[in-house]
This record gives sequence, C-alpha cells and structure tokens, in this order.
Amino acid sequence: MKIIQVDKNISIKRSIDTGTDLQRNSVKKIIAEVQENGDQALKYFTAKFDGIDLEDLQVKEEEIQAAYQSVEPEMIEIIQEAAANIGAFHDKQKRQSWMTMEENGTILGQKLTPLDSVGVYVPGGTAAYPSSVLMNVMPAKTAGVARIVMATPPNREGKVPPAVLVAAKEAGVQEIWKVGGAQAIAALAYGSESIQPVDKIVGPGNLYVALAKREVYGDVDIDMIAGPSEIAVLADETAHANEIAADLLSQAEHDTRACSVLVTHSRSLAEEVSGEVDRQLSLLPRKEIAEKAIEDYGVIYTTNSLVESVDVINRLAPEHLEIVTENAMELVGQIRHAGAIFVGRYSSEPVGDYFAGPNHVLPTNGTARFSSPLNVDDFMKKSSIISYSRQALEQNASKIAAFARLEGLEAHARAVEERFKK
Amino acid sequence: MKIIQVDKNISIKRSIDTGTDLQRNSVKKIIAEVQENGDQALKYFTAKFDGIDLEDLQVKEEEIQAAYQSVEPEMIEIIQEAAANIGAFHDKQKRQSWMTMEENGTILGQKLTPLDSVGVYVPGGTAAYPSSVLMNVMPAKTAGVARIVMATPPNREGKVPPAVLVAAKEAGVQEIWKVGGAQAIAALAYGSESIQPVDKIVGPGNLYVALAKREVYGDVDIDMIAGPSEIAVLADETAHANEIAADLLSQAEHDTRACSVLVTHSRSLAEEVSGEVDRQLSLLPRKEIAEKAIEDYGVIYTTNSLVESVDVINRLAPEHLEIVTENAMELVGQIRHAGAIFVGRYSSEPVGDYFAGPNHVLPTNGTARFSSPLNVDDFMKKSSIISYSRQALEQNASKIAAFARLEGLEAHARAVEERFKK
Repeated sequence: MKIIQVDKNISIKRSIDTGTDLQRNSVKKIIAEVQENGDQALKYFTAKFDGIDLEDLQVKEEEIQAAYQSVEPEMIEIIQEAAANIGAFHDKQKRQSWMTMEENGTILGQKLTPLDSVGVYVPGGTAAYPSSVLMNVMPAKTAGVARIVMATPPNREGKVPPAVLVAAKEAGVQEIWKVGGAQAIAALAYGSESIQPVDKIVGPGNLYVALAKREVYGDVDIDMIAGPSEIAVLADETAHANEIAADLLSQAEHDTRACSVLVTHSRSLAEEVSGEVDRQLSLLPRKEIAEKAIEDYGVIYTTNSLVESVDVINRLAPEHLEIVTENAMELVGQIRHAGAIFVGRYSSEPVGDYFAGPNHVLPTNGTARFSSPLNVDDFMKKSSIISYSRQALEQNASKIAAFARLEGLEAHARAVEERFKK
Repeated sequence: MKIIQVDKNISIKRSIDTGTDLQRNSVKKIIAEVQENGDQALKYFTAKFDGIDLEDLQVKEEEIQAAYQSVEPEMIEIIQEAAANIGAFHDKQKRQSWMTMEENGTILGQKLTPLDSVGVYVPGGTAAYPSSVLMNVMPAKTAGVARIVMATPPNREGKVPPAVLVAAKEAGVQEIWKVGGAQAIAALAYGSESIQPVDKIVGPGNLYVALAKREVYGDVDIDMIAGPSEIAVLADETAHANEIAADLLSQAEHDTRACSVLVTHSRSLAEEVSGEVDRQLSLLPRKEIAEKAIEDYGVIYTTNSLVESVDVINRLAPEHLEIVTENAMELVGQIRHAGAIFVGRYSSEPVGDYFAGPNHVLPTNGTARFSSPLNVDDFMKKSSIISYSRQALEQNASKIAAFARLEGLEAHARAVEERFKK
C-alpha cells in the first residue's frame, strides 16, 4: 500500500457514474412503460431482465415461512439481535411534537408526523444483503411509517434469498414484491394494479436503479445516491498494524472503487500497516477486488502531528472514520465531518455494519460535510403550527401589515386588517 | 371564484418548469466559465445580465451603514422583532448530541455538528424580500454555522435594496456579494478569488438559479426547489367569508401560478367567499396577478362533511393550511400533510410570512407528504459514534463474524477476529 506525505489537495471524491444518454433514455422508457401498462409491464421487464416469468409478483406468506426453515436458527437469532440493537438506537433518535404557549394566547409548535408509506429497494444477486434490509427498514418502522414495502429482483427460479426474507420480516416489512431495476422504482413511485405507490424510496441499487430514483425524485422523496464505500483510519503509534490493515481491507473487499485510507503521524506505523495490508490481502477470498481497490484508491497519508492528522480527516470528510489513538474519545469533539466515528481499538468498522445499532447507510464521497447517516428524521416530516389569539393579532397587526407593505404585498396587509374592520 | 363539488382526483400539483435544453446548457456554460475564470467571469456576467460594471463585488460596511440611515427606524425595529421571534422559534428546534453508555463499556451516540458554511441566495428586483433573508439566514445562525454568506444581484446603480441589507445584518450574515443568477450559485459552490465556497446553498430564485442549484447539487447541498405558493383553507359555517377571501387573495397576489383553495362543507360559506373574493379582488393593487391566479388555480371545494374536508386537505398536502372551524386546534391531530398549519380565525397566513417565528420556507406542490419547513436540522449534520470496549467486542465478535460470512464478506469477519488473535 502506498505511503504519501500529505499535501494540500487530498480528497476521497471519485467521479459519480451518471450514466450515458442511452442508459438514461432507457430508464425513462421503462418508467413510462410501467406508468402506462402497470403489472403487465412489470412482468415483461422481470422476464426480460431477470429471466423469469412470474404469475404473481408478491412474495407469499408460505415463502417467508420456508425462508425461516432454511436459515440456520443461530443466524435467525443473530438477525433478531441485530434488529433489536438497531431498533434501540433509532428509538433514541425519535422526536416528539412540541408546542409553546405565551400569555397573550399565542401558540407555536412543531408537529412531527411519520410518512404514510415507504418503499425499500433491495438489490439482487450477490449484493442482496440482509443487513441492508435491517438498516433501511428499521428507521422507517421506528418513525411509525404505517406501510413499509420492499422490492427486490427475483433470481432465475423466481426466488428471493431466504436471509433477506427473514430480515424483512424481522424488521417489519408488510409487502415484498419480486421486481427489480428501474421498473421497481417506477412501480414504487407511481403504482400499478397490484402495487400501491409510496411517498419515499430508499435503498441501494445499481446504475439503473440510481438513475430511476433521480428520475422520480420530486414526485416522491428518495434517499441519497450513495457512492462507493470509504474508510479513513486516524491512528498514532499505539495502534496495532495488523488490526488497522484488516479494517482497511474489510472496506476494500466491497468494491474495486472502495477507498481505504490511513492517516498517521507515525512513520513506523505507516510502514508496518503497508506491509500487513500486502500480507493479509494475499489470503483473502475476494482478493482480486480488494487488491484493485487498494491499488487505485488506497493511501497511507503521513503527517507531522496528530493535529495535522485531524485536519486531514476533516478535509476528507470520510464515510467511516476509525480513531485508534491514545485517548481516542477526546478527539471526537474535533471531528467536524464524518458519517460514523468508530472510537478505539475494539470498534472495528464491521461492528457498525451489522450489529451495534447505528445505521450503516452513511454519506459517501465527501458529503459528510453536509449529510447525515440514514435516521428516523428521514421518515418523518415536520409541520409548523401557528395559532394567534385575537389579542396576539391585535398587538402585532400593524407591524405585520407594515412589513407586508414594505415588500409591496398589499393583500397580505389587508388580510390581517380584515379581522379588525368595523 | 369557482365552486366545485369535490371528486377523487383533486390535486394542487402543477408542472415544474425544468427549463429548455438551451437554458440548461447556458447555465452549464456560466458555471464552467465561473469555475475557470473566477471573479473576472462574475464581473463579466454582472455587467451582461445586471447592466452594471462593478470594481468590487462585496458590499462594504459603509453601504450597510447607509442602509440603516435610509430605512425608517420603526421598520428597523419591526425587522429586529421579527428576527427575534424567528430566532426564538428556531432555538427550540436545536438538538444536542447524545450518548448512551452500557455496563459492558459500549458507548453509542449521535454527534450534531453545524455545517461549516452556508450561502443564502436572495433574488433581485421586486422579489428582494427582507423577510426571505431572515427566514433563510436565521435557522443557519441558530444551528451555529460559522460562516453565512449572501449573494444577490445588484441593480443598475450597483446597489442592493437597503431593507435587504438591514435584514442581512440583523440576521447575522457576514459577507454580502453583489452577484446574482447562475453565476452566483457557481461562485458559492466552487468559489472564486474573492469568494470562498460554501457547503450548502439555500434561498429562492428564478429559473436560472434553480437550474444552477440542480447542477451543483452533490458537490454542495441545496434546499428544495420551491414551486409557486399555495394556501388551502379548511372552514366551516362559523368562518367569516370576508376574512377567508382576504387570506385566499394574499396568496394569489404572489404569482399568477399561486394556488388558493377553500375546502368546506358549508355551501353558504362557499358562495359568500366566492362573492367576497370577486369584490376584494377588484380593489387590489396587484389585481392582474391575483385575478389570473384565482382564475387558473383558485377553487372552492365543497364536501359533504367536515370529515370529508379533512380528507381532502390530506390529499392536497398544502404548503399553507388555515383551519377556521369550531375547535380548530382539535383538528390539528388529523392533519397528516401540510407545511404550516394556521389555527383559528386570528391566525391569518401573513402572520407566518413575516412575524410569528416559524419558517415561511415551506414544502410546495404536494411535497408536504414527505418534506418539512426549512429548519435548524437543515444546517446541522449527524455523525454516529460507536465505541466498543474489549469486553463488548468479545461478547459479540462471533455473531458479527457470522453475519459478515452470511453476506460473503470474509475480510469483515477477519477484521473483528484480528483483535483476538493469539
């Protein structure tokens, strides 16, 4: 793994694939087709892209029961424990409506209301991750969303992986549809004979899914379009090189475009980690992927001090940050930009991917500067409440009218004055 | 104003202008030009579009002092009181970081951090509203954003309206730049020699500004792209027709595409309001605008009951909702979708536009189904905190590793196990 003395122009940003005109047009056509022909179009595209003719698009209760039979009981318990941890963490995010009351009768407030319905997209194939089901569904459930729907492409036998079905059931999904790609996003946004539309669509997907989400955005809400995964480790000489290397590789095995970075002022740690990465890499089942990612996007940045290292981290604004230094918790207050912060030697990043409770859907590509992990707020909306008494309006009517007239909006002024007309 | 018995297919959605290819390309060229030539490009476009050659793009302290001299002292006090009300309401939205600690040493938490910098766009000409400056700046200030910048096009004398400068100063803007249109958005997103880039851009603007915001989105965050304004009034027979009509017209005077709707089960109220709208309309200075809006988008929906009226409101998901019925506050709990809810006879909508405190930047075009008023959360981001002790990781290592292996991610499992290698 390469070691570079840090300079001013560091970044983990990678170009985002926004598709070719051909791909964008093909997505638009699929969406239009689903809007026009509903279920028939969904079945047509499922036959075309997933290679299976389906009579019924919905996963049946028997299939879910069968899934529970085919997943090992210990694994079901682990999924249940992870779901409970995720639920407990997200419960703490949930906010209440509030009101304030003044002596003159003014009542102001903020009402929180869960979205009516949410669709969770789950990719097919090797990217069908039960952890992703839990992380996308649990915050919606905690928010109180009444209807949570899942869409995922079936395999060539018309099946969905059993662990995905178990995770969906445990997380509280009410309907599961065997439909994938742009056609699934279209069905979730606009509905079909059998699928009712939703208000928001979340979950990862391939380029076609991402393009379709961009296309329907505005008619429904969407989550962020995630880029490839990243980790940055901030370490000093107290860190163990083998552990840091293992964590860097756990990120690199995701994707050839994944980004693993170590930032340290310890030159000796930098060299040890570099060697450990090469050694452990050769032993990995997904070594081709990890090797390419480390080669293209892996860097060890050396700095002159811990202070400089913290500054580098804030400039990177990484999705995942591990702090492996003495008194790691004391540094958290200095971190301005990071999706999730893993503190100390025993907080290996996979702890957060599966189990601890905080969400693993995190801002990538430097967007931690302004974005947050997926959370309960993403599934609730606010409404302001304004209630003025006669007394309150009388006290303030002339000021409100003056402000309206300053802006040239006479009808605004008159609306207030109309209340006090003789 | 037309009266229609409600049917199933009601909606206040209007098509959103996404520009022509020519317009989109011209915006892309302006952005590229600013990225390449910085201040020189900004001055060129300001000369071209705003008709003024500027030596210096930044508003000077003397200009702000002069603005305070030219705005009436009573008006300055009203702006100050409005700013204080807006600040007080938004203070209540502000959230704190939190952590939970378990006996096994697990610490989980959520860190809240204000964005580093925010740019507020303020349109020029007749749309230069000081209230809009307050509403866009105050939540960022309350969030604790360290750098708040404003950009607004100068007039042909190179000036910015004094009330806008006063509002900016009162709200806490630190830099004001005389630059408008797509070039302003480009400068805020990517910077120039004199303007440092920001992390998020908010504020209304014309089509070119909206297109430019869409273009830079992802590199920086943006607020929603707002559609034309809307009001829906939910009323029963206790409402006063002249007051309802005045409120409907206050919305209609904004824009020929503004939407004013009354929903009531009182046939007599419907008829009275219809007559009152016609009568008051003829007396308004902006009657051409209001008349067109009422003609194209104004409707009085009559229903068979209050219950049905509430259902209609939830289907409309209006930006502004007034409830003018007996026991209006009791109905608030039934409203699932509305940007701001004005409760009772004395809560005329302009109360919220200028003065009460809640934000007037609200979700339009039915997006109240999933969006919120502009608020302090929009200027802060969350980072998850995960700190596992040795004991906590030991207790859960085998479960985390099993979950990782279920998903085929061996390096994830090994990262955890690496901590306990002999």
